[in-house]
Amino acid sequence: MSKSLTKRSEDYSKWYNELVVKADLAENSGVRGCMVIKPYGYAIWEKMQAQLDKMFKETGHENAYFPLFVPKSLFEAEEKNAEGFAKECAVVTHYRLKNDPDNKGKLMVDPEAKLEEELVVRPTSEAIIWSTYKNWIQSYRDLPILINQWANVVRWEMRTRLFLRTAEFLWQEGHTAHATREEAIAEAVQMMDVYAEFAENFMAVPVIKGVKTESERFAGAEDTYCIEALMQDGKALQAGTSHFLGQNFAKAFDVKFTSNEGKQDYVWATSWGVSTRLMGALIMTHSDDNGLVLPPKLAPIQVVIVPIYKGDDQLEAIRSRINPLMKELRDKGISVKFDDRDTHKPGFKFNEYELKGVPVRIAIGQRDMENNTFEIARRDTLSKETVSGEVVVSYISNLLEDIQNTIFQKALDYRATHITEVTSFDEFVEVLESKGGFISAHWDGTAETEEKIKELTKATIRCIPIDGVEEEGICVFSGNPSNRKVLFAKAY
Amino acid sequence: MSKSLTKRSEDYSKWYNELVVKADLAENSGVRGCMVIKPYGYAIWEKMQAQLDKMFKETGHENAYFPLFVPKSLFEAEEKNAEGFAKECAVVTHYRLKNDPDNKGKLMVDPEAKLEEELVVRPTSEAIIWSTYKNWIQSYRDLPILINQWANVVRWEMRTRLFLRTAEFLWQEGHTAHATREEAIAEAVQMMDVYAEFAENFMAVPVIKGVKTESERFAGAEDTYCIEALMQDGKALQAGTSHFLGQNFAKAFDVKFTSNEGKQDYVWATSWGVSTRLMGALIMTHSDDNGLVLPPKLAPIQVVIVPIYKGDDQLEAIRSRINPLMKELRDKGISVKFDDRDTHKPGFKFNEYELKGVPVRIAIGQRDMENNTFEIARRDTLSKETVSGEVVVSYISNLLEDIQNTIFQKALDYRATHITEVTSFDEFVEVLESKGGFISAHWDGTAETEEKIKELTKATIRCIPIDGVEEEGICVFSGNPSNRKVLFAKAY
Repeated sequence: MSKSLTKRSEDYSKWYNELVVKADLAENSGVRGCMVIKPYGYAIWEKMQAQLDKMFKETGHENAYFPLFVPKSLFEAEEKNAEGFAKECAVVTHYRLKNDPDNKGKLMVDPEAKLEEELVVRPTSEAIIWSTYKNWIQSYRDLPILINQWANVVRWEMRTRLFLRTAEFLWQEGHTAHATREEAIAEAVQMMDVYAEFAENFMAVPVIKGVKTESERFAGAEDTYCIEALMQDGKALQAGTSHFLGQNFAKAFDVKFTSNEGKQDYVWATSWGVSTRLMGALIMTHSDDNGLVLPPKLAPIQVVIVPIYKGDDQLEAIRSRINPLMKELRDKGISVKFDDRDTHKPGFKFNEYELKGVPVRIAIGQRDMENNTFEIARRDTLSKETVSGEVVVSYISNLLEDIQNTIFQKALDYRATHITEVTSFDEFVEVLESKGGFISAHWDGTAETEEKIKELTKATIRCIPIDGVEEEGICVFSGNPSNRKVLFAKAY
Repeated sequence: MSKSLTKRSEDYSKWYNELVVKADLAENSGVRGCMVIKPYGYAIWEKMQAQLDKMFKETGHENAYFPLFVPKSLFEAEEKNAEGFAKECAVVTHYRLKNDPDNKGKLMVDPEAKLEEELVVRPTSEAIIWSTYKNWIQSYRDLPILINQWANVVRWEMRTRLFLRTAEFLWQEGHTAHATREEAIAEAVQMMDVYAEFAENFMAVPVIKGVKTESERFAGAEDTYCIEALMQDGKALQAGTSHFLGQNFAKAFDVKFTSNEGKQDYVWATSWGVSTRLMGALIMTHSDDNGLVLPPKLAPIQVVIVPIYKGDDQLEAIRSRINPLMKELRDKGISVKFDDRDTHKPGFKFNEYELKGVPVRIAIGQRDMENNTFEIARRDTLSKETVSGEVVVSYISNLLEDIQNTIFQKALDYRATHITEVTSFDEFVEVLESKGGFISAHWDGTAETEEKIKELTKATIRCIPIDGVEEEGICVFSGNPSNRKVLFAKAY
């Protein structure tokens, strides 16, 4: 390969960084910690957005847009939320630049244009949205409010990595308001389920649904539901969260409603989000040493056709053979690209589309023209087959489905061999170091134990699985009684 | 009407402000100059986005995403652009808040978290994008780059109005790079044409295509192409601009390429954008004293069905009659809502959907049930007709098309009576004051004359129309020779 990648086994982290750049997904920008999402990467994100947006609308949500800026007085209103985000937020203090008298051609902040109140660039929008909901909600008739926003947010992270952790990222944030505690919890759980369905059925990324411990909870939430994925290096990745916020924001912003019995009560809230971090999960779950592997349902190009020819006549013959095939594929909703560039050789193109994770590649040369065949290669297994022109459309259609299922099953199998139950702390450490993955173990429920395990091993409690069962046991670390196993892992 | 609006004839500006809020499109937020776009308003914007995005992709553009922040050193690199935007930009100076020791529960900017270099919140992205393109472009083979971005931008405007002028707004910005001057100009013209097609065929807003004078040009452009619409109060509204940037940004960021003859040259650029300002144009072009009038192609709800009934049995009978109709309409791609709320009377609902501009309203009561008819009202003319159930689907389908055409024609007729040719300055002033609209007049081509006319009348040169012809004449103000008429108007 011309653009050879570091192997995963050599340096997984380096492999990831190289892959993101070489597959033209994203790159670092001239702004500390902020990325440029390149067209090919953005096309994948657009496919994710379109599907998620559909699922949000099917579950009754509408989109809206709220301001980028949060005035400091609103930002600080919900104390825990403010505490959680104050340490890493971008603050606008001035509204003008002026010519720098000491530096010709340079600008400086105009000290006369200082804002009366500083504005925080939203790290999340609960504060600005709940200060708005206050005016929208008087009665139970105004509830529920089921709103989602697609937006950019900024968190001043010190150590950043493309897609996984960036100072600015793109996300969606749902913010809902309800008349009862039960309804709000049901909403938060529903959105965790929507995220899980999206991750598994579209990204082909198996996830575990669970609840966070107190120390891993969203700042300002009463409960954080999550989906946790497992990467090929044995590290977990939190792929989406859905928060039951209780009445915390309603109290902070004094949002009350009159119930149908005429009683006043604070409104119940949820918020839920997934971000461009999902791109990181997608890349790391499926890709290999040759490059990206994309699930067909999210691939911007599902099928690429590479002609193998000498001279214009052969190319034109191939083109007239290919045109009806492309039409048939497109009529079936399959996206297809014919790469007739004469500036690059077929071998170069094969490598390029492998690197970019195009699920199916069709090559067609002179022998194929004579025999009415196509050479069809699948990206996930790198295997090839010669297929008759008579059945090629249904073959490709089935193949795309098969690839989607195969890469999901592969990820599921990997995870199955990387969830290990342990009963002692020695075993815990040994498994964590030797193969990583999720470790299922009893925990005594205290933040102290959780913290000590983290200090000693860097593993955190990823979640208390939703489908876990109550069972008596003793904590893997403290030996104290426990009534439930939780999942530990090192995490992104 | 329960939510009565100020009449346009009484106070056009107040009518607009009230309509935007009462029709649930947008409202002012707790952040100075920033708006909240409410779900109904956002749904219209989403329809605009979807159509524009399709048109951009059909003309070969891809989407990408660049950082929100522009470091000061990049911001100031293109001098004219910097000068144009420095006076009204939000500046991030710090990356942390901390507890205020003098104010329990309050936060303050942490003076120890001052950024080494200030970050400007993008008012437009030429600077950040061209500093990125520098790394993407070496050879003519890397050109053209045809990229669009959907994003939020911030301009610290002092006087703001919902949709028309807000400190933060949503927009798309195309940024393209080309090997030749001619190709870049063709791109800029193409995108003006795309905007005009969108405005006329989807928004039903007639526009005049033209070029801006030097003083009205985008800061940093060599030429600004524009589309100019006319509102019902006789004021013009700039609805979209497409800039030929020459080599200004390439020179500022040192972006050179090697041509296919092996020569080095600076890259040629364009940028083009439309924003949520289009919402203002849409609202003001068609709406009336009863509320919003929406073109069917952009209406979130195209058809609303209001049942008129007593008791559950009648409602259920109507429902079973309506269900197959709704399915048939939806199968034709028509969006339809059945409003079966029992908390509101039909008259209230009629007013509500008039206010919200739903193009077609179907009412169905007992007599309709007996006669197999529907009462169908169109929003634009407020006329009603009783239509047989046998033809109702095709009737509605035709009606939606008819409404789209009718409101466009109405706006076109209005504009036709509001473009006035004048040959003297007295006439100029008289027409401007009596009926407003566009004034077509000879201008001597000097910025001095343009500025004086503006001072005296508040009218600016909206554009030099693309389809204008060269003709000898004398300037309406100075009496100096002129070879072309331009369009003046007071403008939003």
